[in-house]
Amino acid sequence: MTITVSIDCMGGDHGPHVTVPAALDFVRQFADVRVILVGMTDRLQPYLGDRVDPRVIVRHASEVVAMDDSPAITLRTKKDSSMRVAIDLVRNGEADACVSAGNTGALMAISRFVLKMLPGIDRPAICSVLPTLTGQTYVLDLGANVDCTPEHLLQFGLMGASLVSAVEHSERPSVGILNIGEEAIKGNEVVKRAAELLWDSGLNFVGNVEGDGIYKGAADVIVCDGFVGNVTLKASEGVAQLLATFLRQEFRRNLFTKLAALIALPVLSRFNRRVDHRQYNGASLLGLRGIVVKSHGSADVLAFSRALQRAAEEARNGVLARINERFARLSPLQEIA
Amino acid sequence: MTITVSIDCMGGDHGPHVTVPAALDFVRQFADVRVILVGMTDRLQPYLGDRVDPRVIVRHASEVVAMDDSPAITLRTKKDSSMRVAIDLVRNGEADACVSAGNTGALMAISRFVLKMLPGIDRPAICSVLPTLTGQTYVLDLGANVDCTPEHLLQFGLMGASLVSAVEHSERPSVGILNIGEEAIKGNEVVKRAAELLWDSGLNFVGNVEGDGIYKGAADVIVCDGFVGNVTLKASEGVAQLLATFLRQEFRRNLFTKLAALIALPVLSRFNRRVDHRQYNGASLLGLRGIVVKSHGSADVLAFSRALQRAAEEARNGVLARINERFARLSPLQEIA
Repeated sequence: MTITVSIDCMGGDHGPHVTVPAALDFVRQFADVRVILVGMTDRLQPYLGDRVDPRVIVRHASEVVAMDDSPAITLRTKKDSSMRVAIDLVRNGEADACVSAGNTGALMAISRFVLKMLPGIDRPAICSVLPTLTGQTYVLDLGANVDCTPEHLLQFGLMGASLVSAVEHSERPSVGILNIGEEAIKGNEVVKRAAELLWDSGLNFVGNVEGDGIYKGAADVIVCDGFVGNVTLKASEGVAQLLATFLRQEFRRNLFTKLAALIALPVLSRFNRRVDHRQYNGASLLGLRGIVVKSHGSADVLAFSRALQRAAEEARNGVLARINERFARLSPLQEIA
Repeated sequence: MTITVSIDCMGGDHGPHVTVPAALDFVRQFADVRVILVGMTDRLQPYLGDRVDPRVIVRHASEVVAMDDSPAITLRTKKDSSMRVAIDLVRNGEADACVSAGNTGALMAISRFVLKMLPGIDRPAICSVLPTLTGQTYVLDLGANVDCTPEHLLQFGLMGASLVSAVEHSERPSVGILNIGEEAIKGNEVVKRAAELLWDSGLNFVGNVEGDGIYKGAADVIVCDGFVGNVTLKASEGVAQLLATFLRQEFRRNLFTKLAALIALPVLSRFNRRVDHRQYNGASLLGLRGIVVKSHGSADVLAFSRALQRAAEEARNGVLARINERFARLSPLQEIA
């Protein structure tokens, strides 16, 4: 089976300069994938050269969604944008998944309008992988929903567990809910009620997880509302940058420390590779009738290529069918909720 | 002027084993302080030895608040607990500030009941200092209030700015609000309304700050509700621990890397000292008619001693008067809010 990924090549801070080389890398690395590069052909061409590859298809789109375009206006007016066309390709079955580094709000709005939600799911959620002491964890929502009901958080749990089941081949991934204490009485009313729903959901629910539990690997899937998730994710990036900066400053302090850095270079390089956030690029927009992966806007070739791999993995492992199946199985519960 | 700090010596994971040596260190380091050690005298005595120091006073208290005691029951029944007596000493003027590493919920409840709130302030907030690329920032609330109104967030801004004015001697500290984007349209309704109130407050308000902005030093004071603040703080600790563990693992991988670690040791030690979270121990309970500082439960001597220093600094710099003054000046605005 060949997986076809449509790519919004004009999105992100660097556009085709990053997206096209990443797509070519991706095709080179994986024999079972094809890409449809969507964008202004004259802007894509310089990065393609004379290369002819049946697995690299170019599709012209005359417009571009800007980073500050309003989602609503983009939806109404930019019908031939590279983002819109890339998503249309998923809807009409020409592509199995779509990747964009563009405007998140527009990507959410267009995906929701074009692809529609899966049955039983109210709102899409943004899900990303984070490193932990024991491996990795999937956290959602990371910013699509600033206000959530307990039912939304339950749906996030079900979607996240389906994603992990499919992609990590783990049958009963553990699911936790982000809270300010481990005891059941902690937290606000929404989180307490969501925990009750999750205990009754048939998921392998492990209860409350505190902020540091994310990185201790307290659960395979951690649910939270989009406000908390977004702030937590960005604060985590902030801490990592702060520590990296301090470490660099200490190694650059004087001649002796610079010499020490030289000797420690192989160790520091391994450490840098291990904590390289580019490895974790690519957030899934879950709940849609189609696979959409959002890359960080500032992604470079390595990072964007990781987002493409994530999209292909989801398609390869039938994530949508998994989510559908789980919601179908739980539909009586859904009606109660 | 002598600053008297009352210490709940029985609180925290280690009790007198940590609190008493930290208190003695503190008195040794600062000529203008006195301590009142509150707790079971027979438990404190072994750490005091034969030492006689007019600046170290011992006050017996027959009970101890356990880490899992309910705040409400503690308040009603444990009237001779070391925590309660230490706070009573602040109320009746024998101490200028109080420090405890005990049960946070009980400390909040007792402080609020015994000391009462300052005029114009509805709820206490927990405020802590975090390191940034450019220095440090004060973040509140870190967990006292899981649901906040816009007016509460405004009060946090006013209290935080008063604290920074007093302790850091900065006349117009900048104040930001934690949000999921920098644009004014981002976030939930509470945060948007709080931002409007903060723009009109007379504070040096700089608008929305994203999660990573905390560590970039985007503002001197950053306000958020206690749920977001608590999760963010703990997630930050989790990331720091994760990175420290990865770094240690890489340096312990083989003989060569261990040798590199040995050579890099002075650099790594400096780095460790710089990111040592013990330096930042001691969260202020703001909004009360008295200075109360909460130490981390697991604090060691160095960390607990930092919390004592924080309490003394607040007393020395008249934090309460500052908060009072600012709320008095803004009282017409308060009434509108």
